[in-house]
Amino acid sequence: MALIVQKYGGTSVGSIEKIMAVAKRVVEYYEQGNEMVVVLSAMAGQTDSLIKLAYDMSDSPDPRELDVIMSTGEQVSVGLFSMAIKSLGYDATSLLGFQASINTDNLYGKSRILDIKTDRIMKELKDNRIVAVAGFQGIDDRGNITTLGRGGSDTTAVALAAALKADVCEIFTDVEGVYTTDPNICPKARKLDVMSYDEMLEMASLGAKVLHIRSVEFAKKYNVPIHVRSTFSKERGTMVVAETEDMEKVVVSGVAYNKNEARITIRKVPDHPGIASRIFEPIFESGVVVDVIVQNTSEDGFTDLTFTVPKPDFHSALKQVGVIAKEIGAEKVLGDEDISKVSVIGVGMRSHAGVAQKMFKTLAQENINIMMISTSEIKVSCVIEEKYTELAVRVLHEAFGLDDE
Amino acid sequence: MALIVQKYGGTSVGSIEKIMAVAKRVVEYYEQGNEMVVVLSAMAGQTDSLIKLAYDMSDSPDPRELDVIMSTGEQVSVGLFSMAIKSLGYDATSLLGFQASINTDNLYGKSRILDIKTDRIMKELKDNRIVAVAGFQGIDDRGNITTLGRGGSDTTAVALAAALKADVCEIFTDVEGVYTTDPNICPKARKLDVMSYDEMLEMASLGAKVLHIRSVEFAKKYNVPIHVRSTFSKERGTMVVAETEDMEKVVVSGVAYNKNEARITIRKVPDHPGIASRIFEPIFESGVVVDVIVQNTSEDGFTDLTFTVPKPDFHSALKQVGVIAKEIGAEKVLGDEDISKVSVIGVGMRSHAGVAQKMFKTLAQENINIMMISTSEIKVSCVIEEKYTELAVRVLHEAFGLDDE
Repeated sequence: MALIVQKYGGTSVGSIEKIMAVAKRVVEYYEQGNEMVVVLSAMAGQTDSLIKLAYDMSDSPDPRELDVIMSTGEQVSVGLFSMAIKSLGYDATSLLGFQASINTDNLYGKSRILDIKTDRIMKELKDNRIVAVAGFQGIDDRGNITTLGRGGSDTTAVALAAALKADVCEIFTDVEGVYTTDPNICPKARKLDVMSYDEMLEMASLGAKVLHIRSVEFAKKYNVPIHVRSTFSKERGTMVVAETEDMEKVVVSGVAYNKNEARITIRKVPDHPGIASRIFEPIFESGVVVDVIVQNTSEDGFTDLTFTVPKPDFHSALKQVGVIAKEIGAEKVLGDEDISKVSVIGVGMRSHAGVAQKMFKTLAQENINIMMISTSEIKVSCVIEEKYTELAVRVLHEAFGLDDE
Repeated sequence: MALIVQKYGGTSVGSIEKIMAVAKRVVEYYEQGNEMVVVLSAMAGQTDSLIKLAYDMSDSPDPRELDVIMSTGEQVSVGLFSMAIKSLGYDATSLLGFQASINTDNLYGKSRILDIKTDRIMKELKDNRIVAVAGFQGIDDRGNITTLGRGGSDTTAVALAAALKADVCEIFTDVEGVYTTDPNICPKARKLDVMSYDEMLEMASLGAKVLHIRSVEFAKKYNVPIHVRSTFSKERGTMVVAETEDMEKVVVSGVAYNKNEARITIRKVPDHPGIASRIFEPIFESGVVVDVIVQNTSEDGFTDLTFTVPKPDFHSALKQVGVIAKEIGAEKVLGDEDISKVSVIGVGMRSHAGVAQKMFKTLAQENINIMMISTSEIKVSCVIEEKYTELAVRVLHEAFGLDDE
């Protein structure tokens, strides 16, 4: 007997029939003697309709009230799910954020979970009920409804698993698990059986889109094993767990890419202390997330500075930088939207040399020019021309021995 | 300066544009220096879609979970309304049942309000906010969401007005107020300027459908003045208040009708103590509301018993009564669905004789046969053939001097 937290996303509960299918699956686990806590997202499309309604009312809807409206999507899901369980002859209860005591700060729309009081859930489990918890939502210390941001239901599930000391947190989604790379552009992509939290974090931030990044940070912090698997099959998916020595034998476990960034270069920046801060402060303050930053060694008191920003922020950032460049006496500002970032990831890199070199060589063999390089302990990223993205992913996948045989 | 509770129904908040219009109206009151608490229903059609969703999932949806789902309709309304107020440059906050501490028992789907802790609302008012409270919903002592049943938002508004000691409770609806009778069948119907709680109770229970009956009971108990008026005009509507001596000068203030009942007659019931209870107990127990009951004087130890039930319950009640009639040795059971009940109502009846007589005479002049009669202190009802309903209403309306000149 185990305590299992499961999370089903919007496509998994996108219709009455699908919710019933999920209910039947949960009942199977329950019948095997497991205690079941099930976190649900809003039915697919529901969140978007609610957002549309809010923006029809106001161009900049009040954040508190937006959360009041948005949280109804998950409320309907858990209500319908509990009805489904009951109609199958089992007992269930739905709990909203305030009922499950999912306490957050009050940054409406992007709140963080502070703690969870598990009394009510434990009581319901003790009474042999299946507990359905509304994902994505919480309550602040004044009783206001908050939401955790897109993908927040993953975080709800992991935080619940941590608080309840669950045996496992299963994240059900519409894919079979986490792949070595995107199967859409690399047919030889393989499903990973196991990977570390850190690898998942790099994969998530690089666009793999399987798990909400905050949920993985949470899982790492509290050492919650996550099982990413498909709602629509019974196959084992991918276990995301703490790093083991075994994992280090594999040097590279995945290849990720991100086409959603653009590059800004400032030529001939007068190089003196405080110049980087002078340039980036206004950009950070306007909420733009700067990713890769590269600064060349100074020559004759001047340096070139290049960095990437998300594409939607490109034009406003370019404008801001243009103004600053003039002020500080830089030569000129260049921008390029047709770039992409390709990365190889693996905890094995910590103990294996030569990964970066192998990556550069593999790209060179295909005549792919590398514009920027950025490395971390377990990742090497190269910014290249966007048109080479798919080719780069495929050759790197093969070069690092990831191809499905 | 006054503290005003206003309630807007589903048609009044049926679209983004209508919610904005309501927000503008509320702001006008606020600008005049009033403290505003606004109770909203779900957007028109919303409650029905939610019910449909629940019944698509289960033929008999779990009542607790049904309330979880149903309460989202009002939640969206108050969120959108508060956004509207804010976009007009004023401050507002939405409060759900649990946030406004609208404490109820836990009869899901038909809960009763037990008490309201007003601390949070008073605090928001003190901070100069317009407060939007979700109608129809409450919270039980274990933190479960409850709903008050159809039309429950009226009750929310009146209960809030009582708890907050508001100066007036304004119920906004899609008609101009309460009429002497249904204007659809009697073009000479007049809007009443003022009426008593008791008259309104009789009007409501007889099908006038303007106010939720429980809200009027509440208003009477706590002496909350209700102003029933139109969302779509600025005309004064109808004040529903405690009875005054002045009111007694008008003998009859309205004519109501109800076509939604059917009649059951048991012929030649052996008349002995306990027989009525023997007949009605199973009917009451099955939840059927029996309205008019008439028992003739016994003759040779036998009596005839006639009563009315709501039309949707007619067939099941007829079947039940058939079984009992056999058991107790009655002669036979007759049923008739083509009936209606016409009533004249007025607190003035308490001090004026002859109202019933005048009613019988008026109906007789039109050759309308009276099948059953039932009276209370302030009402006389006659059951007649359904096809005469409109005619009866018109002639009674004229006979009692209610016609608009």
